[in-house]
Amino acid sequence: MSADYFADFAPVRFEGPDSDNDLAYRWYDKDRLVLGKRMEDHLRFAVCFWHSFCWPGSDVFGSGTFRRPWHAGPNDQTAARAKREAALAFVEKLDLPFYCFHDVDVMADAEDIAAFRRSFAEAVDANLFSHPRYMAGAATNPNPEVYAWAASQVRDALEATHRLGGANYVLWGGREGYDTIINTEIGIEQQNFGRFLSLVVDHKHRIGFEGTILIEPKPHEPTKHQYDFDTQSVYAFLKRFELENEVKVNIEANHATLSGHTFEHEIAMARALGIFGSIDANRGDHQNGWDTDQFPNSVEELTLAMLEIQRAGGFTTGGFNFDAKVRRQSIDAADLFHGHIGGVDTIARALLGAAAIIEDGRIDAFRAERYAGWQKGLGSQIHAPGTTLADIADIAVSSSLAPEPVSGRQEWLENLVNRV
Amino acid sequence: MSADYFADFAPVRFEGPDSDNDLAYRWYDKDRLVLGKRMEDHLRFAVCFWHSFCWPGSDVFGSGTFRRPWHAGPNDQTAARAKREAALAFVEKLDLPFYCFHDVDVMADAEDIAAFRRSFAEAVDANLFSHPRYMAGAATNPNPEVYAWAASQVRDALEATHRLGGANYVLWGGREGYDTIINTEIGIEQQNFGRFLSLVVDHKHRIGFEGTILIEPKPHEPTKHQYDFDTQSVYAFLKRFELENEVKVNIEANHATLSGHTFEHEIAMARALGIFGSIDANRGDHQNGWDTDQFPNSVEELTLAMLEIQRAGGFTTGGFNFDAKVRRQSIDAADLFHGHIGGVDTIARALLGAAAIIEDGRIDAFRAERYAGWQKGLGSQIHAPGTTLADIADIAVSSSLAPEPVSGRQEWLENLVNRV
Amino acid sequence: MSADYFADFAPVRFEGPDSDNDLAYRWYDKDRLVLGKRMEDHLRFAVCFWHSFCWPGSDVFGSGTFRRPWHAGPNDQTAARAKREAALAFVEKLDLPFYCFHDVDVMADAEDIAAFRRSFAEAVDANLFSHPRYMAGAATNPNPEVYAWAASQVRDALEATHRLGGANYVLWGGREGYDTIINTEIGIEQQNFGRFLSLVVDHKHRIGFEGTILIEPKPHEPTKHQYDFDTQSVYAFLKRFELENEVKVNIEANHATLSGHTFEHEIAMARALGIFGSIDANRGDHQNGWDTDQFPNSVEELTLAMLEIQRAGGFTTGGFNFDAKVRRQSIDAADLFHGHIGGVDTIARALLGAAAIIEDGRIDAFRAERYAGWQKGLGSQIHAPGTTLADIADIAVSSSLAPEPVSGRQEWLENLVNRV
Amino acid sequence: MSADYFADFAPVRFEGPDSDNDLAYRWYDKDRLVLGKRMEDHLRFAVCFWHSFCWPGSDVFGSGTFRRPWHAGPNDQTAARAKREAALAFVEKLDLPFYCFHDVDVMADAEDIAAFRRSFAEAVDANLFSHPRYMAGAATNPNPEVYAWAASQVRDALEATHRLGGANYVLWGGREGYDTIINTEIGIEQQNFGRFLSLVVDHKHRIGFEGTILIEPKPHEPTKHQYDFDTQSVYAFLKRFELENEVKVNIEANHATLSGHTFEHEIAMARALGIFGSIDANRGDHQNGWDTDQFPNSVEELTLAMLEIQRAGGFTTGGFNFDAKVRRQSIDAADLFHGHIGGVDTIARALLGAAAIIEDGRIDAFRAERYAGWQKGLGSQIHAPGTTLADIADIAVSSSLAPEPVSGRQEWLENLVNRV
Repeated sequence: MSADYFADFAPVRFEGPDSDNDLAYRWYDKDRLVLGKRMEDHLRFAVCFWHSFCWPGSDVFGSGTFRRPWHAGPNDQTAARAKREAALAFVEKLDLPFYCFHDVDVMADAEDIAAFRRSFAEAVDANLFSHPRYMAGAATNPNPEVYAWAASQVRDALEATHRLGGANYVLWGGREGYDTIINTEIGIEQQNFGRFLSLVVDHKHRIGFEGTILIEPKPHEPTKHQYDFDTQSVYAFLKRFELENEVKVNIEANHATLSGHTFEHEIAMARALGIFGSIDANRGDHQNGWDTDQFPNSVEELTLAMLEIQRAGGFTTGGFNFDAKVRRQSIDAADLFHGHIGGVDTIARALLGAAAIIEDGRIDAFRAERYAGWQKGLGSQIHAPGTTLADIADIAVSSSLAPEPVSGRQEWLENLVNRV
Repeated sequence: MSADYFADFAPVRFEGPDSDNDLAYRWYDKDRLVLGKRMEDHLRFAVCFWHSFCWPGSDVFGSGTFRRPWHAGPNDQTAARAKREAALAFVEKLDLPFYCFHDVDVMADAEDIAAFRRSFAEAVDANLFSHPRYMAGAATNPNPEVYAWAASQVRDALEATHRLGGANYVLWGGREGYDTIINTEIGIEQQNFGRFLSLVVDHKHRIGFEGTILIEPKPHEPTKHQYDFDTQSVYAFLKRFELENEVKVNIEANHATLSGHTFEHEIAMARALGIFGSIDANRGDHQNGWDTDQFPNSVEELTLAMLEIQRAGGFTTGGFNFDAKVRRQSIDAADLFHGHIGGVDTIARALLGAAAIIEDGRIDAFRAERYAGWQKGLGSQIHAPGTTLADIADIAVSSSLAPEPVSGRQEWLENLVNRV
Repeated sequence: MSADYFADFAPVRFEGPDSDNDLAYRWYDKDRLVLGKRMEDHLRFAVCFWHSFCWPGSDVFGSGTFRRPWHAGPNDQTAARAKREAALAFVEKLDLPFYCFHDVDVMADAEDIAAFRRSFAEAVDANLFSHPRYMAGAATNPNPEVYAWAASQVRDALEATHRLGGANYVLWGGREGYDTIINTEIGIEQQNFGRFLSLVVDHKHRIGFEGTILIEPKPHEPTKHQYDFDTQSVYAFLKRFELENEVKVNIEANHATLSGHTFEHEIAMARALGIFGSIDANRGDHQNGWDTDQFPNSVEELTLAMLEIQRAGGFTTGGFNFDAKVRRQSIDAADLFHGHIGGVDTIARALLGAAAIIEDGRIDAFRAERYAGWQKGLGSQIHAPGTTLADIADIAVSSSLAPEPVSGRQEWLENLVNRV
Repeated sequence: MSADYFADFAPVRFEGPDSDNDLAYRWYDKDRLVLGKRMEDHLRFAVCFWHSFCWPGSDVFGSGTFRRPWHAGPNDQTAARAKREAALAFVEKLDLPFYCFHDVDVMADAEDIAAFRRSFAEAVDANLFSHPRYMAGAATNPNPEVYAWAASQVRDALEATHRLGGANYVLWGGREGYDTIINTEIGIEQQNFGRFLSLVVDHKHRIGFEGTILIEPKPHEPTKHQYDFDTQSVYAFLKRFELENEVKVNIEANHATLSGHTFEHEIAMARALGIFGSIDANRGDHQNGWDTDQFPNSVEELTLAMLEIQRAGGFTTGGFNFDAKVRRQSIDAADLFHGHIGGVDTIARALLGAAAIIEDGRIDAFRAERYAGWQKGLGSQIHAPGTTLADIADIAVSSSLAPEPVSGRQEWLENLVNRV
C-alpha cells in the first residue's frame, strides 16, 4: 500500500479567477477580508472522512468502483491506518482547517462492545445507523438494550470529541423514525428520544465539553419517516423537552430540499428560532427523490443561503462540512480534488455575492421599508401589552381602513441578486 | 331560479351493502353501534358550503363548468339566499349533522369594511386569503392595516360562530407564508402571527366561546412556503407562543400528503403531541403536486387514519369535514350526491375496519409487546430520575449487551390490516 | 448449513377468507375459474430469486440484517447451491408456478470472462448493472469493450433461458442512462442501445427462442435519468428502431409511480400501443422518492391495474413477477412467507374485483356510451378518408354546433369500483 | 382608460453590466456577435400576450390583484383594443422582435361559433382549454362535436397565423389527457388526437403555410395526466402517426421539470430525435408541484440549456417565448419590465456562457474522446452490417476483454461549466 496516495498532487493554493490550473482555488483566498473577517474564518470548511475515504463507490445496485489501496485488502487496523493517513494528507493539501468522522469509520469492525471500545481509541462521533442492531433505530429503538448500546457509543464519542478539542458534536438520527406506522408507537419513541437527548446534554455538562450539540434534520431515507424531518420539527422536539437553548441544528442542503424546503429557508427558519448551528455542504438533484450528496456547484443557490448565514451572525462553532461524495464514476484520486475545489470555490463565490448584496444595501433597505409599519402607529399598538383583538378590530372598522396595495417587487429583487 | 334545486332527489338512507340504489348508503348506518358509540357520533360529518355550492367548476386554465342556477345571475343577496337554501336542502337530504362555511361565502361581495359587516350577519369563519388585500398574507402581512382588517373579520366570524352555537373555529393560513424569501422577514412574520393567534384565543375566552380553535396545516399552495407546513411545524409554533393547550390542528388528508407525510402519520403525530382536533376529509392525487381536494375513496388509506383517530380517543368537538370538490367534469346535481355518498361510505367502512382491528387485538398486542421493555428493568431504569448517560453506558459495557434482533413483522401486520 | 431452511413451514394452501391460519391463502384458489380461466393461469406468479434469497437486508446506510445460513460463509459454489435449494423449496411450499433470476445471482463472483461462463452453467437473465465495469452503462457505455461484455452475458443468458424453456427474457436497463448530461451524448448512446436491442432480437430468432423479449421501464435510480423512462419512452425507442412488433414492456408498479404515472396508466398505455408484456408486482411508497420494492398490499390500486390487464387480453407469456423485498427489519424466514402470501392474496382479490366489474358491466357500458359518437355520423365522417380539417370546420360553423355538456361522472364510477 | 399605460417608462436599452439603471439591459446587446451571429437572431425573444396582459393576477385561492385599466370595465371590444395597444407599446419599449397570443385573448367573449369567427378577425393561435366545452379535451374529447369546434378554431387561427406571416403554430394540449382513467379510453383518444394532428398538418400544406407546427409537452395540470407528457412521449406519438418529420416540440422549462427531467435534457432529447423546435422561457419552483411560470433567473440552469440549443444548431423558426407571469404581488407596471428585463438578461448571459464553453472546447473534446471507441475497431465492427450478437460475444470471450475503467470526471466538468 502506497505511503502517500496523493503523492502526485501539489498543494492546492489560491491563484485567482484567471488561473489555468484545474487544481487551484479561483475564489477561495483564505486570508482575504470579507465583511471584516477572513474567508477561512467565515467558512470554516471541513472534509468528511466517511464520504471521501470510506465509501467505496457502491450503491444499492452495484458494488464499489473506486480502487483505493486501503479497500483492496482486509478491513483491519492496518487498512484503517492507511486510510487515516491518506485523509490527513488530503486535508493538508487542500489547506482546509477541519475534518470530521464517525466512530466506526476509523476502526476495524468489532462485534462485541468491549472490543468496540478498544478499537475506538482515537475516533469521534457515533454511527448509530449502520450496524444491524440499529435497524429499528437507536434512541427510538423498541429494545432498551439497543438504546444502552447507543448510549455507550455516544458517551465514548462525546468524550473523544472533548479530548480531541472538537468544536461540535452532531447527532444524525439515521434510523430514528419508522418503516411502517403500524408497528410503531410514535409517543413512546419520541419520549425515549427526548430522554436520550437530555441525557447527552447532561453528560456534556458533566464532562465540561463546551462545544455545541447539533441535530441534523432529514425527512426520510433510509426510513420511511424520520422524526427530525426539518428544522421546525426539530424545534418542536427541542421545545417539548426544554432543550431549545442547549441544542442547535446542522442543516444539510440536500436534506432541506428533500423535505420540501429550500436550503436558505431552513437556515432562515433556524435563525428565526434561534437554533442555527452548522451546515452540511452538498446538493441534491431536483429530479431525484433521494439523497444524492453531490458537491455544491450552484453559486446562485448558495448566495441566498450565505445571505441568511450572515444575517444569523455567521458561524460560531459551526462551519461548512463537505457531506458530499464524488460520483460513482469519478474513480480517480484527482476527482476527489475536483469535487472539493469546486465546492470550496462555489461557496467562496457565494460569500462574495452575499457580501456584495449586504454592502449594496438595497435589498435590506427594501425589506426594512416593507415591515416599517410595525415600528410605529398601528403596528406598535397591535403588539402593545393590553391591546385586544376587539381593540384592533374596532380601529379597522372605525377608520374604514383601506390598505394601499404595495408591490412585493419579487422580479426586481431577483434581478438585484443576479447582478452580484 | 328553482325553489328547490334538488327536488328530484329522494332523501339518502342506509340500505346496506347489497342495495341496488346508487343514491343510498351501503355502510353508513348512523345509529349502528361501533365500539360502543353510534356511527353518527363517531364520524360527525359536515358538508362544506364553499366546495359544493360556491365553487363554479373553474380552475387556473378554464372557467366554471357547473350550471347551478345561483351562478347564472348577478352575485347579489338573492343569489346568496338561493345558494344557502339549496345547501340546506342538500345537507338535509344527505342526513348529515353539520355544515361549515366562510364569512365571504354566504354574502355578496362588499368592498368597504362597514358594508362587509352588515352583509355578514348570519355567516361563520373568516376567509383571509381570497381578497387582493391579503395577497401578502393576513396575520403575516407586512402592513398592519391589513392585519387589522383580518382582526376585524375574525372577531366577527368568531362571534357569529359563538352565536350560532358552533363547535369549532378553524384558521387556515391560506397566504400565511411567502412567495419569495428575498422580500420576507420570517422572524417578524412569525412574531406577528403568534401575536394574532394569542389575541384570538384571548378573545375567545372574553366572549365565553367554548369551542375549539383549530389551525389547518398545509405546506405550500398558493404560496411557495406556508408557515403551518405540517403538524410538527404547528406544534413548534404553538409551543413557542405558549398556545399548545389552547389550539389544536385540523388535519386535511391532501395537505398531509403534499407535506411528505401520510394522513395517518399526521393524526398519530397530533395525538402524540396532544393537539389532535378535527379532520378535513378529502384525498389528493399521488401523481399530482397540488391540492386536488377529491372526495375520499380509499378504504385502505382511511382505515389506518381511523385507527389513529380511535387511539386518540375519537373526536370531541371535531369531525369529518368534506373539504372536497366534485371534479370539474362532474357537472350534474347527482354528482354532488355521488361524491358525498362515496365519501361517507368510504369513511364508514374505514371505521368498521378500524373497529375490527381493535376488537381482534393482535396488532395492538404486537405493538405492546414490541415496547414492553420500557415498562421494566433496563427500560424503567433509563427513565428513572437521576440515571445518567454514563450509568446506562456502564450497564451496556459491563453486561456485554448483545441485543437479540426481533423482526418488525411489517408484512404480517399489513396482511392483518388487509383482512378486515 | 441446514439441509432445509424452511423445514418448519407447512405447504401454503388455499383455506378461504375465514381461515385462522396466517400461512394460508385466503383468496388465491388456483383452480377457481374466474372469467372462464383458472386463477393460476390468469396470474402466473413468479418468485424472484435475487430479492428473496440474495439480498442480505442491506441498504445504503447499513449492512445486511438477515441471518440466512448461506450468507454466513464465503460466497462460493457451496453457498450458491444452498441458496438455490432453499429457493426451490420455498417456491414449492408456496405452490407458485414460476421463478426468475439473474445470471450473477446464482453463481459465485467471477472476475474474468471465461470463469464467468463456466460458473454460469445453469442460470438465466443477465445482470448488466452491478459490476463496476457497468458503472457507465452496458449497451450505452462509451466503451465498446464493455458493450461486448454485455453482449456476451446476454447471449449466454438468452441461450440458457431457451435451454431451460423460459417464457420471457427481460432487459432492465439498470444503468442505461446518465449521471450528468455534461459528459453524455444522448444521440450516440441511443443509437448504440438501439443496435444492441436489434442484435438481441436477431439472436433470439437465430437460436429459435420463441419467448418474449421485454424491456422494463424505470425513470431514474441508480442513474439520474434512465432512457427507458416509462412505457411511452420505450415505445418511442422501439418505434425508432423498428422493434415495436418484437419487444414488449415489463411494467413494474413502483417504477410507474416514480415516473409520474399510476400503475394502471402504464398498463393501459402499453395496451393502447400494443406492447403490453408482463408485470413486476410490487409497490412503492408515495411519500418516498426511491424504489422501495415492497410487496403489493393495496387491493384498491391493483383492481384498476387488473382491469386494464383483462382489457389487454390477460397475459400470454407474462405474469406477476414478485420483484419485491421484505423490509430490512423483517428478518425471519416467516416474513418471506407473509410477504408472498400477502402479495398473492392482494392480487387474487384484485382479480376477483376486476372480474366483478366486468361482469357487472356498468362501467364498460358507460365508457362505450361516452365514446359512441365516434361510431356514427360526425365521428365517422371525421375519420373517413378524404375528410379535411376545412370540411370539419365548415360543419362546425354551418351547423352552429353547440355541444351539450355531459358529466364525466367520476365520483359515481369510483363508487362502482369501490363496491366490488 | 389611459392612452398609454406605459407612458412613464423610457425605452429599454443595452447599457452594459455596470449600469445603475434598473430598466436597462446589462447583457442583452442585440447586435453583439456571438459565435458569428447577432444576439437578437440567436435568441428571437417573444412577449406573451396572455401572461402579461390578460391574466389579472388571480389564482385558485384569490381574485386578481393587478389594477390594469383594461380590466376595470366590461370585457368588450374596447377593453380588448386598449389591452392590445398597451401590449404593443410594451413590446416596442422592450425592443424585442416577437409576440404571441391565443385567439380568445384578443377578443371579447363570444358564445356562438359565428360570433366567435367575426370577433376573431385579427388574432392568432387557438385556445382549446379554457371554455367549458373543452372540459374533457378538444381533439381527445369524447364528443365529435367538440372536436369539430376545435377544428374550426384551429383552422381560423392557422389561417390567421399564415396571413400575419407567423413563423410557428403551437398546439398546447391543455386538456388532452384525462382526469380519471376509469371513464377514459386511451386508445380511442389517441387515435382521434393523431387524426386531428394529421388534418392540421394537411391543412397547413393546403394553405401554403410554411411555418412550423409545434406541440408543447406537459405532464399534468390541469388534467391528472396529459398525453403530451414529455418530449419522448410526443416523439412516440408523432412516430406512431408518421408525423415525426412534420411536427416539432416547443419545450417549456417548467413543464420539463414537472415531468421529472431537466430543461437541458428535454432539449438534448429533442435534438437526438430530430424534433427540436422552440422554447417557452420560464422557470418552475423545485419545491412546488405545479406550473408556477416564473421569469427565468438562473444563469446556471440556462447555460446548460443554451449549450444544447447551440448543439442543435440554434433556432430556425423558433425562439425564446416568455411564457412567464410576474408574481401576483408584483402589481405595478414596472414589475412587468423587471420580469422581462431579468429574463432577457439571464438568457443573454447564458448564451455568452455557452459560447465560452464552446470556444474553450475542453468539454466537447472530453466528450468526443469519451465516445471515440465507436469510430474505430470494435466500435465500428459492432455497427457494421452483418455483425451478430454472437460475433460480438465471441470477441469478448476470445479476447478476454478487461475494459479499463475511465473516470466520468463529472466534478471537473461541472467546475469547467462554473468558470464561464
